[in-house]
Amino acid sequence: MIIVKFGGSVITDKKVYKKIRTRVLKRLIYELTDENIILVHGAGSFGHILSSDKKLNSGLNDSNMIDFSTVARDVQKLNTIIVSMLIERKLPAISMPIHSFHMVGENFPYTKFHEYLIRGFVPVTYGDVVLERKKGMVICSGDQIIFNLAKYLKPERVIFVTDVDGIYDKNPKIHKDAVLMKIVHANDSITFDNDVKDVTGGMELKFKVMGLLASSGIDVMIVNGLVKDRLKLALQNKDVIGTRVVP
Amino acid sequence: MIIVKFGGSVITDKKVYKKIRTRVLKRLIYELTDENIILVHGAGSFGHILSSDKKLNSGLNDSNMIDFSTVARDVQKLNTIIVSMLIERKLPAISMPIHSFHMVGENFPYTKFHEYLIRGFVPVTYGDVVLERKKGMVICSGDQIIFNLAKYLKPERVIFVTDVDGIYDKNPKIHKDAVLMKIVHANDSITFDNDVKDVTGGMELKFKVMGLLASSGIDVMIVNGLVKDRLKLALQNKDVIGTRVVP
Repeated sequence: MIIVKFGGSVITDKKVYKKIRTRVLKRLIYELTDENIILVHGAGSFGHILSSDKKLNSGLNDSNMIDFSTVARDVQKLNTIIVSMLIERKLPAISMPIHSFHMVGENFPYTKFHEYLIRGFVPVTYGDVVLERKKGMVICSGDQIIFNLAKYLKPERVIFVTDVDGIYDKNPKIHKDAVLMKIVHANDSITFDNDVKDVTGGMELKFKVMGLLASSGIDVMIVNGLVKDRLKLALQNKDVIGTRVVP
Repeated sequence: MIIVKFGGSVITDKKVYKKIRTRVLKRLIYELTDENIILVHGAGSFGHILSSDKKLNSGLNDSNMIDFSTVARDVQKLNTIIVSMLIERKLPAISMPIHSFHMVGENFPYTKFHEYLIRGFVPVTYGDVVLERKKGMVICSGDQIIFNLAKYLKPERVIFVTDVDGIYDKNPKIHKDAVLMKIVHANDSITFDNDVKDVTGGMELKFKVMGLLASSGIDVMIVNGLVKDRLKLALQNKDVIGTRVVP
């Protein structure tokens, strides 16, 4: 089983509220040649902009409940579009919004994902708002979900599809002399500076999650989803431009 | 806490694939004056037509997986619209699709509903496809979900909003001399003949569920959602045309 992550920055325009990159998204779904997968997608501009504006990460209070509901509804809309595209491509997708079954601090309920996988379905989950004991609710990124899913479901591989070629020694969107690294080690010290506000930690947290996955024996790869066939080649385990994270 | 059920036949045109009765639905949402509620809605023509055509109730096989996915996606679309209308009316709604956390035969996972209620949210769930051990997947009606929710969450009242004034001694859509009953007892013997194909059992199963709820001490009422203010009056526990089901 392979977990594929569609980063929010590749499937949406992160700077424009609820703007999908439809052409890119459709192509990526076309490149999903393996059917034994869980698809995890980021919320992109369907989640981050409103969450950041309303400071939802600081928790729930009487005045922001409706904002939590709105963010959950917005990402549900994005998810419905992605599920529809998968169905159009004849993949039996099924939506798994974590806000409906998970609570931060409790064990992640992974069994239903397993039940769908053994029946041949493609579970689709996403970065979402989620219940939490102290703050009421918090935001949970797609990468955090992947960490939880991987712990229990032991995928052979996790492929992160982003809007950059891989991990660079510096942020390539800021520094022109940044060099792409074909392989990085989980413990390598890399400096990440985010160019867009990301309520869920950006590339730094992503790299942390990747390192933990790699350390547990999972093949971890990051590829650029804006370039045709990178995801397809990665799924086929062929030589492709990108970064492999190893223990 | 009150559970309100929007019947599929009142919020959609059950004979036309994916046709919402937008005006009726908006009015019903406007009539939700109590905020301590769980809203359960039927799938109506977003679920029954395709489920019936593809005989999904007989279970999962290689050729109908995509139909299960399509039904789940269709009712997810209906649910997103309803959640959006609730948010527009400033009710902090949150979608709880049972296909993502429930499996028929296991205990119903009610705890997350409780967590949302104590935070002041309005959980919204609906008739859906759901995992099952023997057949793979089956269809679960909103009424069956209500039975499960009521068992654990002990609502004071359950209000069923349908497209008829209440329970008649005969089917009022067929027999012109049918008489509306103000009160029926759980054990009364009533003949129901459905006029529209209903993959989840129609009024007969609904009456069975109502009887079980009433017998467990819950105040059970059925009102006509096509008539203005019936739901509002029922929620306010005022005198209203409809049927009360008692033990």
